Amino acid sequence: MKKYQRLAQQISEQIALGVWQPGDRLPSLREQVAASGMSLMTVGHAYQLLESQGQVVARPQSGYYVASQVAKPAPPVARVATSESVDINTTIFDILQASRDPAVLPFASAFPDPRLFPLAQLNRSLAQVSKRASPLSTIANLPPGNAALRHAIARRYALQGMNISPDEIVITAGALEALNLSLQAVTEPGDWVIVENPCFYGALQALERLRLKALSVPSDVKEGIDLAALAQALRDYPVKACWLMTNCQNPLGVTLTAEKKSRLAALLRQHNAVLIEDDVYGELWSGREKPLPAKAWDSDDRVLHCSSFSKCLVPGFRIGWVAAGQHARRIQQLQLMSTLSTSSPMQLALVDYLETRRFDTHLRRLRRQLAERKRLAWQGLLRHLPPEVTIHYSEGGYFLWLTLPEGLDAGELGARALARGISIAPGKMFSIANSWPSGFRFNTAWGWGEREEIGVKTLGELIRRMMK
Amino acid sequence: MKKYQRLAQQISEQIALGVWQPGDRLPSLREQVAASGMSLMTVGHAYQLLESQGQVVARPQSGYYVASQVAKPAPPVARVATSESVDINTTIFDILQASRDPAVLPFASAFPDPRLFPLAQLNRSLAQVSKRASPLSTIANLPPGNAALRHAIARRYALQGMNISPDEIVITAGALEALNLSLQAVTEPGDWVIVENPCFYGALQALERLRLKALSVPSDVKEGIDLAALAQALRDYPVKACWLMTNCQNPLGVTLTAEKKSRLAALLRQHNAVLIEDDVYGELWSGREKPLPAKAWDSDDRVLHCSSFSKCLVPGFRIGWVAAGQHARRIQQLQLMSTLSTSSPMQLALVDYLETRRFDTHLRRLRRQLAERKRLAWQGLLRHLPPEVTIHYSEGGYFLWLTLPEGLDAGELGARALARGISIAPGKMFSIANSWPSGFRFNTAWGWGEREEIGVKTLGELIRRMMK
Repeated sequence: MKKYQRLAQQISEQIALGVWQPGDRLPSLREQVAASGMSLMTVGHAYQLLESQGQVVARPQSGYYVASQVAKPAPPVARVATSESVDINTTIFDILQASRDPAVLPFASAFPDPRLFPLAQLNRSLAQVSKRASPLSTIANLPPGNAALRHAIARRYALQGMNISPDEIVITAGALEALNLSLQAVTEPGDWVIVENPCFYGALQALERLRLKALSVPSDVKEGIDLAALAQALRDYPVKACWLMTNCQNPLGVTLTAEKKSRLAALLRQHNAVLIEDDVYGELWSGREKPLPAKAWDSDDRVLHCSSFSKCLVPGFRIGWVAAGQHARRIQQLQLMSTLSTSSPMQLALVDYLETRRFDTHLRRLRRQLAERKRLAWQGLLRHLPPEVTIHYSEGGYFLWLTLPEGLDAGELGARALARGISIAPGKMFSIANSWPSGFRFNTAWGWGEREEIGVKTLGELIRRMMK
Repeated sequence: MKKYQRLAQQISEQIALGVWQPGDRLPSLREQVAASGMSLMTVGHAYQLLESQGQVVARPQSGYYVASQVAKPAPPVARVATSESVDINTTIFDILQASRDPAVLPFASAFPDPRLFPLAQLNRSLAQVSKRASPLSTIANLPPGNAALRHAIARRYALQGMNISPDEIVITAGALEALNLSLQAVTEPGDWVIVENPCFYGALQALERLRLKALSVPSDVKEGIDLAALAQALRDYPVKACWLMTNCQNPLGVTLTAEKKSRLAALLRQHNAVLIEDDVYGELWSGREKPLPAKAWDSDDRVLHCSSFSKCLVPGFRIGWVAAGQHARRIQQLQLMSTLSTSSPMQLALVDYLETRRFDTHLRRLRRQLAERKRLAWQGLLRHLPPEVTIHYSEGGYFLWLTLPEGLDAGELGARALARGISIAPGKMFSIANSWPSGFRFNTAWGWGEREEIGVKTLGELIRRMMK
């Protein structure tokens, strides 16, 4: 094959791969010459060959374009293979991917509707940053992260009566990075770690990834984690850490009472275990007063409190943090080894927002809207689901936990619903041994309208069919 | 202790911790009441107590402020402890932290001078995003990342004659995340992985973190990795992956010839090993033509090519990628478990920049400037260092590798230099067994002026003193 034929074939393959799409202008002859090191004549011949094959069209004074009606050659053997093994991660991945499709009702989603967030104000802060960002700010924002931002977070703790120095805070790429780095900072592979059952799947994945041994302590939809069982586990095993959600637990929605949090902190002290506290829904409380995290009862620096702005202000910025106390330095080291740092303009934009906008006003409105949406969703579910389905109402957050009549599998319901364009998050996503086969999580944050009403009606029909 | 005394003590501790600093306005009485749930009278008493102690001052019509001359009480026991064990990570951490101090000459830095980057244009792209960002763009930019960005990267590969589908590309938080996720995707704890000696410390840290066994293959400052030794290692051990830099190797600066890259690819095929190719300096070549990565010789999908925009356009955005072929799906799963995604506005801003600005014009200028700065630094080093020091010149990138006379320890020189406000990156940062005790890496990208001239003169004096 001659040089120009090889080049033509290469470009033809690129068109097949979608690198150049119908209507795209190809690189000019000059650009192609510079890039390939071939002569102008070779490149010219290649383009003419493609033109003669109908793959590209020449437009005078403009260049070569990919033909719009090009008959795509059969794609080469698919290079992105799909895994055959169906494990928990694949299930979760597939469900999360499905819930991103705008054609699918996002009841499985972990995120609130981003239209609830103050986009215009955030964009103004972004615009401010675009005026002021200096070349050296990147360096200033490396771990532990922007000083003003850590300061602002420390002040929010202070207002809740929690004394946390800005030096103990490390800014991370969302709470998920904070939680992962915390777990890594306090454990070695093979260590025992306690999680709740059911719990946030991210905890299970992190344990698996770091080769930790999981102890699963039952949690109740009304009362939260079973402290007697927790105490037993702490007595029987050399537990290094617990990864727990104390406010608006995911997926059950339950918030521990202050009394229970204080007992939890005492148990940890007694057994010399560390708590990694996942408090991402902490701002989404309802009722009169913001519940404290268990960190507030942490008298000897054994709670790593992780949270973020992703669920209450802006998910896309990917800004979270951990109040890590004595572990702050180790966490910075781990961060420098994995993602290096959180993006600098995002930190600066958040600082600008917190300094100049009304975060608390936004939070009050958000809480009101989420509570209203939850109420509407709850009523919709009551209207359309058979009475044998239990809908567990919880204060705060935007999840409802539902239980199908015994014997019915929520995973099966999830698959059938997805085929009808409705996503739900079945219990098997939230436990190792599929101990909650009939439960599922339902996101109420995306608003309630005709589409949701019809979707839940369909869900009700699917359940009735399964009950027969 | 009464309620108001407790609150006063709490605020006093917060002042000591630096949460509230001299001159800061404290939360208003109303805010404090709302936050603490205490009565207005309790809060008022607490503030008055603090005022009577001289810790805060009341300004009529304005509120309470932290007194500027407050005699800080002795801080409570330092909560952020420093680790006693001095391991490679601590050394690296300390050196990197030191090179961030503006008072220290950043010859140890891994980054180029950010003033070389087109900040005004990047800021214009950021401003564009702040006008257009939609609430749902966060979801569209979840892994594998923004479609237009993956497309733009695929096209840059295409111009080098490499056919890579946008579907094989995953956007990551810088190249470091791409490299870490790639390593995790293709190995299990206990597997053998080949690295170069010396090599980028991030590779060593990743191996340690993932409990992998390292095989260290010698690399030469002129020729790069020793392929005979590599072949031997591949024969003798069940190697899963190699993590190598083929262009402007860090820290040596060497670029493999095309012939060597092709032989490397053949060796990998022969022994069924995967290559994780770290190509972060790939755009910073000098000479007539951009060198191809080894990925260009990858005929059976075993090279994961990792790179980023951090070294050639904008470090603060934290945008990198991996062309992962068949591993793309696994890498997305791992990303969803660790950082969830790369920040959405940063991806959008980069797309805007690539579509509307002149990236290649910037790159040409950047390469010219870096080459010029390297030349100036090299001349400065020649002027001031004793002739017994070998300065290894390499094309491309912005590192020089220097070797002290035998018997002199570059770590020792680094410590002495740091005491004089000069940072260098000693060889022990780049190998497990400190096999390069007399070598160090020197960053030439920060420009050359009087300060650098004096710094290098001091470095020369320190070396002469050590030689005696």
